[in-house]
Amino acid sequence: MVFNIHILGSNSAVPTLKRHPTAQLVNHNERFYLIDCAEGTQLQLRKYKYKLQRIGNIFISHLHGDHFFGLIGLISTMHLLGRKKELHIYGPAELEKVILLQLEVSQTELIYPFHFHPIDPQKSEMIYENEKLTITTIPLNHRIPTCGFLFREKQGKRRLIKNVINNLDIPVDQFSKIKSGADFIDANGKTYKNSDLTMDPYPIRSYAYCSDTKYHEPIIDIVKKVSLLYHEATFMHDKADVAADKFHSTSSEAATIAKRSEVGKLIIGHFSTRYEDPQDLLQEARQIFNNTDLALDGSTFAVAPEPK
Amino acid sequence: MVFNIHILGSNSAVPTLKRHPTAQLVNHNERFYLIDCAEGTQLQLRKYKYKLQRIGNIFISHLHGDHFFGLIGLISTMHLLGRKKELHIYGPAELEKVILLQLEVSQTELIYPFHFHPIDPQKSEMIYENEKLTITTIPLNHRIPTCGFLFREKQGKRRLIKNVINNLDIPVDQFSKIKSGADFIDANGKTYKNSDLTMDPYPIRSYAYCSDTKYHEPIIDIVKKVSLLYHEATFMHDKADVAADKFHSTSSEAATIAKRSEVGKLIIGHFSTRYEDPQDLLQEARQIFNNTDLALDGSTFAVAPEPK
Repeated sequence: MVFNIHILGSNSAVPTLKRHPTAQLVNHNERFYLIDCAEGTQLQLRKYKYKLQRIGNIFISHLHGDHFFGLIGLISTMHLLGRKKELHIYGPAELEKVILLQLEVSQTELIYPFHFHPIDPQKSEMIYENEKLTITTIPLNHRIPTCGFLFREKQGKRRLIKNVINNLDIPVDQFSKIKSGADFIDANGKTYKNSDLTMDPYPIRSYAYCSDTKYHEPIIDIVKKVSLLYHEATFMHDKADVAADKFHSTSSEAATIAKRSEVGKLIIGHFSTRYEDPQDLLQEARQIFNNTDLALDGSTFAVAPEPK
Repeated sequence: MVFNIHILGSNSAVPTLKRHPTAQLVNHNERFYLIDCAEGTQLQLRKYKYKLQRIGNIFISHLHGDHFFGLIGLISTMHLLGRKKELHIYGPAELEKVILLQLEVSQTELIYPFHFHPIDPQKSEMIYENEKLTITTIPLNHRIPTCGFLFREKQGKRRLIKNVINNLDIPVDQFSKIKSGADFIDANGKTYKNSDLTMDPYPIRSYAYCSDTKYHEPIIDIVKKVSLLYHEATFMHDKADVAADKFHSTSSEAATIAKRSEVGKLIIGHFSTRYEDPQDLLQEARQIFNNTDLALDGSTFAVAPEPK
């Protein structure tokens, strides 16, 4: 089951020709989730050949322009291209006003069902759930109310060992019970122990998105041992004062959160425009947390099982 | 004195990787005016190496997203990059609400003076004037209130013939009168006729921007004999019904307006995404008005004197 993170933008504050501001596309089990939507995100989706109509849910972390100015354009393009599928947007309550006002002044009545779900960035709560995944908010510490998002797979059932099951001629209606841990008793009364019939469930995978925030230790408990952590790293640590003043993090701080959270892997982004080549940011992070990569525009990260 | 039109976008409705939606930069006498501002306009400015902080006035024709969704991003980037110079925006009154709401939700107080000038797209009136130029609205016929913009140079004064003037040792304080048509009488009482001292003023140049609109004959009187007319040409004429239904024009209709207005030159844009290569649109227009070009992204047109 696919669980990939596609980076659509990695710059902070303003778009540049090399790096777009923040947006990420999450593909979990062929369901597509968009996190943040800076100006130009719809073009980034085109550039990297992702189908924008497949996005079903959009999550906006906070209302700084470099995280949502592309949203109205995306909503509008979905409309103009004839979308029928419903769209769900999760974000701070004022975002709904911004969307509705822009639809109103352009006299646009969306032709697809549009649902807005206000979120409270101050507390961690589950805001989305399907049969395989939950999404929970991560309160962050930024200049305005901001939260990250934790995508975590649900614990699956035990997996049938196919050739054993097939040899025993087990009725299909027993499968669900066996997957839940039951033994099997055949027509002659012979018992087959569950451990002989099944394997452990697939290991859980998780992805935590944390942008924008200053160094904020309460994050640690929430993202503890996630498979993959995205944490903003706007500045090098020699600009720690600037970072704190602007409610952003340094690369070292991002790596410290990753290390203390014992995550599987860290990716960093939201780089200040001053860093034309963010390699130094990467090297700085790796001094503290070695399994770090740059979340550059166009890169894709497969989410691995959570670390033990 | 420079008078150039730089095309930043030529597509209708949605951005594509080849053609951005509408935005144009006008350079008149090294003052920069932006007409419309689709999503991604700030990046187009960067791509073509125009300095966005030099833009002093922005004109928005109407509130369909493909003409203004990039405005808030541009305003915001000007702020983030430390702009001090004032910015004037001209557009339908509701646009101000959209801008202010987005600044409010992001808790942004602009660090530069920002002036909004509501315009009434229903009537033709002068909305901007400096010592060399006027800008007048052109009511158009679109699904929502929309106007174009006519940039027209003011009639300059007569120009001194330098070597004649220098030989006569005319006091500098007489120059202004002579430029206005006065003769010159020297210390000995000898009269020099103005026609021997001066040449005709520079010829007037003008640019009319007409997007979006269906075929609308009242335009003709307003843009009569302009140097350069931009007229939208969303469809080929075999889609005339679709064009009328969507309140857009065909290439033939744009050329008909140009021909009947006796303009110097026509440029067409706002092409439907269905036309991957707009050459056919160009050929269609040239059947009716030969001096036509495509207003493609990245192209620049120098504005010539008005036709006689």
